[in-house]
Amino acid sequence: MSMEKPETSGSYTGLRRTLETLPSLYYRDRLHHDRELRSIWYRHWIYLCRVDAIPQPRAFRTFEIGDQSIVVVRDEGGALRAFHNTCRHRGSILCAASEGILDSDHLICPYHRWTYSLSGALLRTPNVRPAADFDPARHNLYDVALKVWGGFLYVNLAGEEPNAFEAAFDPHPATLENWPLETLAVAHTYRRTLSCNWKIFWENYNECLHCPGVHRELSRLVPIYGRALMSEHDDPDWAAHRDSADPRYRGGLREGALTWSLDGKVHGPQFSTLSEAERRAGFTYLTMLPSMFALGHVDHVRVVSLRPLGPEATELTAQWLIPPEALRSKEFDLANIVDFAVRVLEEDGAACELNQRGLRSRRHESGVLMPPEYELHRFHDWIRRQLDRAGDA
Amino acid sequence: MSMEKPETSGSYTGLRRTLETLPSLYYRDRLHHDRELRSIWYRHWIYLCRVDAIPQPRAFRTFEIGDQSIVVVRDEGGALRAFHNTCRHRGSILCAASEGILDSDHLICPYHRWTYSLSGALLRTPNVRPAADFDPARHNLYDVALKVWGGFLYVNLAGEEPNAFEAAFDPHPATLENWPLETLAVAHTYRRTLSCNWKIFWENYNECLHCPGVHRELSRLVPIYGRALMSEHDDPDWAAHRDSADPRYRGGLREGALTWSLDGKVHGPQFSTLSEAERRAGFTYLTMLPSMFALGHVDHVRVVSLRPLGPEATELTAQWLIPPEALRSKEFDLANIVDFAVRVLEEDGAACELNQRGLRSRRHESGVLMPPEYELHRFHDWIRRQLDRAGDA
Amino acid sequence: MSMEKPETSGSYTGLRRTLETLPSLYYRDRLHHDRELRSIWYRHWIYLCRVDAIPQPRAFRTFEIGDQSIVVVRDEGGALRAFHNTCRHRGSILCAASEGILDSDHLICPYHRWTYSLSGALLRTPNVRPAADFDPARHNLYDVALKVWGGFLYVNLAGEEPNAFEAAFDPHPATLENWPLETLAVAHTYRRTLSCNWKIFWENYNECLHCPGVHRELSRLVPIYGRALMSEHDDPDWAAHRDSADPRYRGGLREGALTWSLDGKVHGPQFSTLSEAERRAGFTYLTMLPSMFALGHVDHVRVVSLRPLGPEATELTAQWLIPPEALRSKEFDLANIVDFAVRVLEEDGAACELNQRGLRSRRHESGVLMPPEYELHRFHDWIRRQLDRAGDA
Repeated sequence: MSMEKPETSGSYTGLRRTLETLPSLYYRDRLHHDRELRSIWYRHWIYLCRVDAIPQPRAFRTFEIGDQSIVVVRDEGGALRAFHNTCRHRGSILCAASEGILDSDHLICPYHRWTYSLSGALLRTPNVRPAADFDPARHNLYDVALKVWGGFLYVNLAGEEPNAFEAAFDPHPATLENWPLETLAVAHTYRRTLSCNWKIFWENYNECLHCPGVHRELSRLVPIYGRALMSEHDDPDWAAHRDSADPRYRGGLREGALTWSLDGKVHGPQFSTLSEAERRAGFTYLTMLPSMFALGHVDHVRVVSLRPLGPEATELTAQWLIPPEALRSKEFDLANIVDFAVRVLEEDGAACELNQRGLRSRRHESGVLMPPEYELHRFHDWIRRQLDRAGDA
Repeated sequence: MSMEKPETSGSYTGLRRTLETLPSLYYRDRLHHDRELRSIWYRHWIYLCRVDAIPQPRAFRTFEIGDQSIVVVRDEGGALRAFHNTCRHRGSILCAASEGILDSDHLICPYHRWTYSLSGALLRTPNVRPAADFDPARHNLYDVALKVWGGFLYVNLAGEEPNAFEAAFDPHPATLENWPLETLAVAHTYRRTLSCNWKIFWENYNECLHCPGVHRELSRLVPIYGRALMSEHDDPDWAAHRDSADPRYRGGLREGALTWSLDGKVHGPQFSTLSEAERRAGFTYLTMLPSMFALGHVDHVRVVSLRPLGPEATELTAQWLIPPEALRSKEFDLANIVDFAVRVLEEDGAACELNQRGLRSRRHESGVLMPPEYELHRFHDWIRRQLDRAGDA
Repeated sequence: MSMEKPETSGSYTGLRRTLETLPSLYYRDRLHHDRELRSIWYRHWIYLCRVDAIPQPRAFRTFEIGDQSIVVVRDEGGALRAFHNTCRHRGSILCAASEGILDSDHLICPYHRWTYSLSGALLRTPNVRPAADFDPARHNLYDVALKVWGGFLYVNLAGEEPNAFEAAFDPHPATLENWPLETLAVAHTYRRTLSCNWKIFWENYNECLHCPGVHRELSRLVPIYGRALMSEHDDPDWAAHRDSADPRYRGGLREGALTWSLDGKVHGPQFSTLSEAERRAGFTYLTMLPSMFALGHVDHVRVVSLRPLGPEATELTAQWLIPPEALRSKEFDLANIVDFAVRVLEEDGAACELNQRGLRSRRHESGVLMPPEYELHRFHDWIRRQLDRAGDA
């Protein structure tokens, strides 16, 4: 998805027809929202946190996805496990705290002390001898598929046969293979609740038509954004500038800038493993619908993630990842990168909230897409496919 | 509607049978409420504000009717225009502020800068060249019908073929033709949210059975109200008093009173254009369902308007209109007229809230109407007709 | 229901098969909750208050059951009467205050002064002569069945043919016949809103599997609870201890304890009318689904009652009843009994809230019952029967 360059140069990326957006109802209706939870959020890989947020054996964290509570725990062998945060007996929550360290290598229900191994097996039902027909093996915790990639932790609530993990990335996860993702540490976290549907945020992410009007500083840093384009082939007249090296036509950062920061400069170590092209571009996107995207820069990686709180509310989290040694360095200027991106996020958040408010009009059954909104169209098609597949409406 | 005198003297106005009210469900149920929004509030002429609240070219205000946001703007030629406050592109809200002055003679969407003339025509889609099949003329703002009468501004969300405007008044708008409505200025505004369905307020407005118990001072000022009657023919025994000049039988203000005020007196100019009968009556009602009524007095006009906030919440606004020269006069005693009517409104509001609370009883499927509640019956019939016509349930 | 001893000794009480609980949906879904209000709360006898809370003629109190407001008033002859708190005219609430003393021996609607006798008969419709077809006898207040037993006041909203009153108790109301219930006074009231479905509280009440883990002090005071059992025949191996006098096997209070209090001791008068067995047991339960249970001790009676506030919220009230002379005695140590039971109630409340939270998991369609949860199974069967009988879903 999103702002990556098309793989072949030479063809115009824009839409050739005026297409409809999704129906306005999809952004406001509670029943439709429940349908999206079931067909998207409970079926796809969802980013939860960095693995080092659950650093040691017996450490656990709980997460909410829609109205589902998930507990992730690190077992004695260091492996991470995820379960529905629910006891198999009468359905009590298992871990009431949002994070902590278990007292033992068991998950013990606080209500009747049912005791599970950290791989989810029911070990004991204290104080009671079950009836003869009781099969403990059929009362293990409800397990949740879990993957770790690049130090990022994902779960999938689909139960059997979750979607292929690698196919969930757009483009391929190898896009960020030159970044030492596993080794990075969280330098800063920003969190905010947006008064908009989660899809509105992705739509905003998927076009740069709004950039000149909404993001003044970002449009100076990334000159092609100032032309309302994501990349060079979004311009129907791209061929006229095919020999220009000007970032207004080529994409990438403005002359002299190295990273997304207030001054465009780097105050700290740069990743030594990047290619010359990655260094020149200044930023590389990797997307994983519906819950996250990451942006690799020469000195840091930013990951932005979403969680739906309701049809008209979404939790947005951004994290800045840097090498641990930079974290400890005095010269590293964290505010320089954080403040810049927070500004962009807040501009986007405000635009998303305006978009949500206008969708209440009964006359506005749907909107229209302009040629450079080809990624929105792709996103809308993806949404439609998930809903079709789910079937249950 | 309401407290006007019947056009012919000589016949008893009361109901001759005990009739049922609307079902209690109509006052509590969210789905029924949505149906009333669609069949009544989004189909009828709705009062928004005085025209001088949008005084100059480029001035705008936004209003909420149900969950619809409407923007009203005055164009360069001085004409008022109303639109759904929604951009045709991806549905962003156009004017985020509740009021203001535009920077130009355009309405510009804050998200992608789509630019409309003040008559709603799409003029430009900045930063983008639309696809060949894009027809700007099919992407003008969603227009909303607008009327101005007597300095009052009304809109109608019905789209094509809104109801006839004059027929919306009860009785005829000429009822207030002797008042210089266009020239009046707002001297005071009172606003309150009532915890009741909007229809409860109109029911309260449509009978005076509650007057002796609820409005002690009003019942002294208008003696026939003290007899629980709206006008003389509401009394089955009216013929026995046909020759009496006593306002207890005739209606109108008590001896010596001239207007609705704490002392019944006038402290300022009187309208010179009223008829002797209007002057003697002391008040003249004009109603426009579902959103407003106006009450003409010898020295001021009061307009009361409603907006539904949900099945059990209604916003009530009252405005006192007086000649601009009275507004500037030192002798004019505004509190004398405002405080009296606020007292009456607050008594009515408290009664309405008690009525709402009792309607939750499962046993109370509907209530009964007494003979003097003939205007309530007319109101209920009007409601039933709107719902029938809407069809969609 | 609940922790009473089985009437015949000699048979094991536990379930012999692993049974399913009610569906998780029953604890979260608003539509299902409305169905339970209709089929349970509006059909069964519901405990409201002690009769002395409405002490004198003309005293009244209003109560909410689900979304129904009920007024209970004491008439001039001292009899208690209950009505829907709704006027038959246009449905206004009759008594807006939660308690008070009427000005006369009439219930008068605050809106239009319709006047009812304290037995609910419509006496007058002030200010209006009804139409000829109006039959006052068909416009009496909506009456509500009312019973008083042991100084406790109950109502039943079922209208005609409410359930048999005595059959509502479990076991029989005579269970507490040795306690002078009518004469007791309320010494203390505790009230709290629990974030759980009302049935979760009853499930907690109906088993002691949670006792060792949740109630440390109660498990010391009642040693068999420390073994996770409610009574001796809950133990599949009960026969092995049939000759033991140890309260670990027999039930009842620990050696030396007399009542449910912090120190197990009594600081005040004991009821002289109890049997030796009742005295030795230390507590005797009487249950009345869905709204209350009472617990008789040697020095006090505790009554715990519930009111559903929504699918995930329940109001819990506990009252401590003691002889009026103990209330006036200096030596009586109220905190000793109150603090102990509040601790137990708060432990139970916290467990109930954990249980509610975990029920949101989509994987947890229902839970399982262990052998000692036979009373839960009885409770679930009771719920299923009420829902079946109601039919309307």
